[in-house]
Amino acid sequence: MNRAIGVIDSGVGGLTVAHELMRQLPKEKLIYLGDTARCPYGPRTEQEVKQFTWEMVSYLLEKNIKMLVIACNTATAFTLKDLQERLDIPVIGVIKPGARAAIKFTRNDQVGVIGTEGTIRSKAYSNALRKIKAKLQVYPLACPLFVPMVEKGILSGSHAKEVVEETLQPLIGNGMDTLILGCTHYPLLKDTIQEVVGDGVTVISSSEETARETSTILEVHDLLYNGDRNPTHQFYATGELKTFKKIANSIFKEGNDSFYEIEKVSITENQDAS
Amino acid sequence: MNRAIGVIDSGVGGLTVAHELMRQLPKEKLIYLGDTARCPYGPRTEQEVKQFTWEMVSYLLEKNIKMLVIACNTATAFTLKDLQERLDIPVIGVIKPGARAAIKFTRNDQVGVIGTEGTIRSKAYSNALRKIKAKLQVYPLACPLFVPMVEKGILSGSHAKEVVEETLQPLIGNGMDTLILGCTHYPLLKDTIQEVVGDGVTVISSSEETARETSTILEVHDLLYNGDRNPTHQFYATGELKTFKKIANSIFKEGNDSFYEIEKVSITENQDAS
Repeated sequence: MNRAIGVIDSGVGGLTVAHELMRQLPKEKLIYLGDTARCPYGPRTEQEVKQFTWEMVSYLLEKNIKMLVIACNTATAFTLKDLQERLDIPVIGVIKPGARAAIKFTRNDQVGVIGTEGTIRSKAYSNALRKIKAKLQVYPLACPLFVPMVEKGILSGSHAKEVVEETLQPLIGNGMDTLILGCTHYPLLKDTIQEVVGDGVTVISSSEETARETSTILEVHDLLYNGDRNPTHQFYATGELKTFKKIANSIFKEGNDSFYEIEKVSITENQDAS
Repeated sequence: MNRAIGVIDSGVGGLTVAHELMRQLPKEKLIYLGDTARCPYGPRTEQEVKQFTWEMVSYLLEKNIKMLVIACNTATAFTLKDLQERLDIPVIGVIKPGARAAIKFTRNDQVGVIGTEGTIRSKAYSNALRKIKAKLQVYPLACPLFVPMVEKGILSGSHAKEVVEETLQPLIGNGMDTLILGCTHYPLLKDTIQEVVGDGVTVISSSEETARETSTILEVHDLLYNGDRNPTHQFYATGELKTFKKIANSIFKEGNDSFYEIEKVSITENQDAS
């Protein structure tokens, strides 16, 4: 099955999902679309998120993708069910893979979830967790400073540690043995977060888990690529490329033999692709 | 979706998968069938394994199961593909979930796999791993003493540690950062194995990973139970119940609110169900 996996995100956060897909499914070709011109989606209305997401999906369907990964928590919360019903290819979001991993890892049924204010307010993780295992105790916490910090490239060091320590204070010592990174930016802070919460807490990257479940779903639908290849991936962004390229290069630099091309595109008539 | 998940195994090893299903999917009802009268399947011919597995599957299809879990490495190796093609319910085996988890966990692409002689000889794990990620270095090792030891209830202590240490010697210091427990009996030795291989190696239970993927596949097929219940599970065995009950009770004793009933049954005309 030669066709590519489509990955959409409001911006750069989904690049951590793309990176995990490259690492865990090295023969699969990716086509990524980040709507950087209109990100972040967090403060957008539901109507806007739905419309923007459909525009991204339409663009990737034209590229004949075999599966769609919604690598954005906000878009997952608002559009996953609808997309699963309307598309005739498999569709996966980032919320349930993280929830299922947490259920697997926790031994005391006490799970923390950190994310943007929008994701935490949506209760998407709490609902996904407790729908499967009602007796779970869930500790949600919004971490509004993490995304801006990651986008500035501050991932470790004393300043990062200070912000992480201060933000996560309400969770420290609460008894949780598992913490879900419920935002695709946060895996870039994983080492710092792990240091702050301590070795007794399993830190779950929803990006890693989404890539793992993409692998499962491709196999279930007999869609895995069966030959041998080192694919060249396509990355598209709707906004300026400078920051996008910088973050992509910093995420992809390690342990990665893949090639990728980055291009600015217009996905609506009003956007300027020049 | 009220219907039960069917779980088949040649004997008692699959009880670790059942336990993980109860833990990770506490609202789901299980119907388990262990062919204890004819186990182990390891030394059987392919023809026999196929026939016995079909007999178990037919018995569970009569119970109107919504999904089938093949909780036996030998049966997975010989029948998974065929069952996936012929049944109109989802079918999952124990090999690929463990392989996918290892690909997710390994950072240096060096993965050990331990299992029975039959499983190691079949190369099922090496093939599953390298089909997805060709550059993985796989270290397979048969551990023929582990199953008899577990079935005698020797799971920890100095004797267990000695046997595990001696058996795993060829893998120690080989550089692997991930080890797959490629036999459903082995999770009962996980603590001892972890101690022997050291904290630098992630030990993967294919039972935990199979339960996790069962959760994924039920959701993808919209087959999850949506209400609230504490189901009573049915366990059937074709042979004598004394050892079966003893092992079931020891596996299920911890952290489990479920009820279960154990019964001896005949699945062929020649077997005595009295």
